Order: sequence, then structure tokens, then C-alpha cells
Amino acid sequence: MSQAAEGPKIVTAAILVIGDEILSGRTKDKNIGYIAEYCTAIGIDVREVRVVPDLEDEIVTAVRALSARYDHVFSTGGIGPTHDDITADSMAKAFGVSIDHDPRAVAILTEHYGAASLNEARLRMARIPAGAALIDNPVSKAPGFTIGNVHVMAGVPVIMQAMLDAVTATIPTGTKMLSATVPASMGEGRIAAGLGAIQQDFPDVSIGSYPKMLDGGFATDIVLRSRDADRLAVAVRAVEELIASLLVTPR
Amino acid sequence: MSQAAEGPKIVTAAILVIGDEILSGRTKDKNIGYIAEYCTAIGIDVREVRVVPDLEDEIVTAVRALSARYDHVFSTGGIGPTHDDITADSMAKAFGVSIDHDPRAVAILTEHYGAASLNEARLRMARIPAGAALIDNPVSKAPGFTIGNVHVMAGVPVIMQAMLDAVTATIPTGTKMLSATVPASMGEGRIAAGLGAIQQDFPDVSIGSYPKMLDGGFATDIVLRSRDADRLAVAVRAVEELIASLLVTPR
Repeated sequence: MSQAAEGPKIVTAAILVIGDEILSGRTKDKNIGYIAEYCTAIGIDVREVRVVPDLEDEIVTAVRALSARYDHVFSTGGIGPTHDDITADSMAKAFGVSIDHDPRAVAILTEHYGAASLNEARLRMARIPAGAALIDNPVSKAPGFTIGNVHVMAGVPVIMQAMLDAVTATIPTGTKMLSATVPASMGEGRIAAGLGAIQQDFPDVSIGSYPKMLDGGFATDIVLRSRDADRLAVAVRAVEELIASLLVTPR
Repeated sequence: MSQAAEGPKIVTAAILVIGDEILSGRTKDKNIGYIAEYCTAIGIDVREVRVVPDLEDEIVTAVRALSARYDHVFSTGGIGPTHDDITADSMAKAFGVSIDHDPRAVAILTEHYGAASLNEARLRMARIPAGAALIDNPVSKAPGFTIGNVHVMAGVPVIMQAMLDAVTATIPTGTKMLSATVPASMGEGRIAAGLGAIQQDFPDVSIGSYPKMLDGGFATDIVLRSRDADRLAVAVRAVEELIASLLVTPR
């Protein structure tokens, strides 16, 4: 976490998606986009995403790399009751701590299932690395957990979303990145030179150009991002003037 | 690429998504799921995915890590004409080769735009690392390229998909991973013990358990994967028998 005396406060994060089903393409991930948009809105910059299989070594390597580099890591997947749910044990290994049935988690599951139905498999969901804080799961009760700077959440989107609400309420966020989109009814090739010049004039505003197909032709969304609302507004005006001038110019 | 004399042929790949817009959540990625499913269908195992920002150092680091580890890397994004399109230059740096306007690519763009409209920005899309093979772009002409084992494709899905068709036609694929799904109208907690036992009996079949919300309750898809159709069929039968037995057993 870096913070200048007067400058914006930057909080960074990575997303770690754990699951063979995403890598095989059977399940289309819905969590990356959700977490990314959510973090941007509350002032956390997502800087990297990784998707890894349900293999302990792969999870451990990715967790260590990402947790060392970013302020926070949000992981999804692999905390259920079945044999292929190895995320909790892998997190314990990554942080070099023990793992066992956590009394707090056992109590939650006992209340939810009743002692008679809390079989060994369900009890597996109470395995939490030593020293971790629990993340509330209002949907299906089995909790996530935070160990170090890693927030370990379920893969089922509705549960993950509830856990993300819970966990982000507890962590400090940074100065929000503001953004504005200027649409242009032309391809990037006509805009590029002028846009590059504006980017040079505004090194403190990040200017991205995103082509898309529209009515069989190309259009472009120009997205400007800055933590300074005034600078953002001035840069937006410059881009709008560029687009207006190109609309009256032969290609 | 590993290949036993008589065993299945395994071909591995990683996906590298390049783009600030994915990390900010503004654009929801549609390429990861598409490439993953496509690769599985043709006999390429996707083992890892990374999403990195439009920063040269980040791209170079990721390309080197992934290309050293997997048979193929499929990258998407950052090959357009604007200042934020730095993928081609980053790939050249990752492989330690020079980059310049490629005569083959210049010819394609000249034919498409006409010499008068081929401005400097559009010409930027002809910057191809030395030694790279071009990937045909039937949609908007500006080509992708293959350098080493890295296949560099556009980010716009319709273009990426056409490039993926072109590039996968040229590379050897492995023995296809076959899969079957057994649906179960119950949560994972009831299935887990029996499923774990079946997994022990079938170490050569990968068995995954995927919970989902259905009609307000939980259901589970059990996905079995193997390159051996006979073993897969026997394992599927074992899982079906497990589910049938649970349906007549009190929870």
C-alpha cells in the first residue's frame, strides 16, 4: 500500500480464481468481472487476475506470488465439502499455518444443518487455517475466511457476492478511480494520432481506446480514467473536441 | 509437450488476456471462456489464465513465464492502432527480437485501406516482431501473429474467434479430454463421501463437483473427465448408482 502525504491513496488487489471447471470452459466465470467492477467502484485497483486448477502446488504458488505483490487477494472457488475442494488446505500451506475444524465454523454449521445431519463431508467446510478470520455467508452458511491479506470466498456467484460485501466492509479502500467514456462513431485508426497527442498532454489521465463492432462497422469507446475529477473533465473535453473535428474532416 | 509411447498425447496451453479494461471491470471478458471451451474440444488443455494491464513489464513477465511452462500461449488484446496498444512491442521484447513494419502486413493493410488512408496509426498495426508468422484476420484485416509458441490475437471477440480458427488449424493437438456430467438434485454435502470413494477407485478419471442454486435449493453437477472413453463410462455408472442410492436414503 503506497500513500503520498497529499496524493491519492492507492489500494491494490489481485483476483485468484481456483477451478478446473473454468479452465476446461465448462463453467464460464462470472466472478472476475463482478469483483473487478465492484473494486473499481469502492476504490481498490485490481492489477492482475490468475485462474489456476484444483492442484495444491498451483494454488500455493499463485497465492504466494499475488499476496506478496498486492494489498489484497480475492480468491474464489474450492471451499465446498467435496474431495476436489482443496482451497482451505492450500491456503494454510501457502501461509505455513496449521488447519483444523474451527469451533466458530463448526458452531455455524451445526446450527444450520443440525448435529445429526452434520456429516464428515459438511464438517470439512469448517476446516479453516489457524489465525484466519471468518467471512459471513448469509446464503448457505459455510463461511469463507481471510488469512493474511487473502480473502477466500466461494465460487458460486450469489454466495461470492455476499461474501465480497462482507469482506470489503472491513478493509480500507483508496481514492476512487473516476472514469468517463467518450463514444466515437468511427474506427480507432482515424482517432489514434490525435488521441496519442492528448495522452501526451495528460500523463496523469489514463486514456484507453476500445474498438467495437456496431451496425456492421467499427465504432470506438474512448475511456478516460483519473483520480482527479478536474483533470478528467479537461481531458474529456479535449477528446470530445478531437472527435468533433474528425467528424467534419474527410478520412 | 509430453508424450508417452502408447499413452495419450498431452498438449497444454495458457491464456493471457491483456487489457486495463478487463481489470477495471468496464469490459467483461468473453474470450477466456470461449478459448477454454474451444481448446478442450480440440484436444488442448488450458492449464492457467492470467489477465495483466497494458504495461510492458507486466506483459513481458507474464509472456516469459507462460511460454516457458506451456506448449502454447493464446494472448488477446492490445494489437490495435492506438497509443495504448503495446502488445506487439512487448512480445518482441519478451522474445528479445526486433520489431518493425512487416512488409506482408503492410501489403494487407494497403490493400484494405488504400495507400491514401493508410495513416501512421493504421500502419502501426503492421508492426510485427521479427520472425513471427502472421495470423489471418478475415474480419478487419490487421493480422495477429505467432512468435515462438505465443499466438497473439485481437481482443474484440468476433476477430479473436476468427484468429483462433486460423491458428489452431496449424498446431498439433492432443488426445481429447472427454467429459460427462451427472446431475444430482441435492447439495454437495450428501454426495461428498460417496464421491470421494469413487474418486479413489478411479484415479485416472478426474471427478469434479459443482454446486448450483436451483429452484431456491442446491443441486450439484458432477463432472467426470478422462481421455479414456471406457473408463469414463464405468466411472459415470458408479456415480449414477451413488446418486440413485442417495435418493432412496434419508439425509
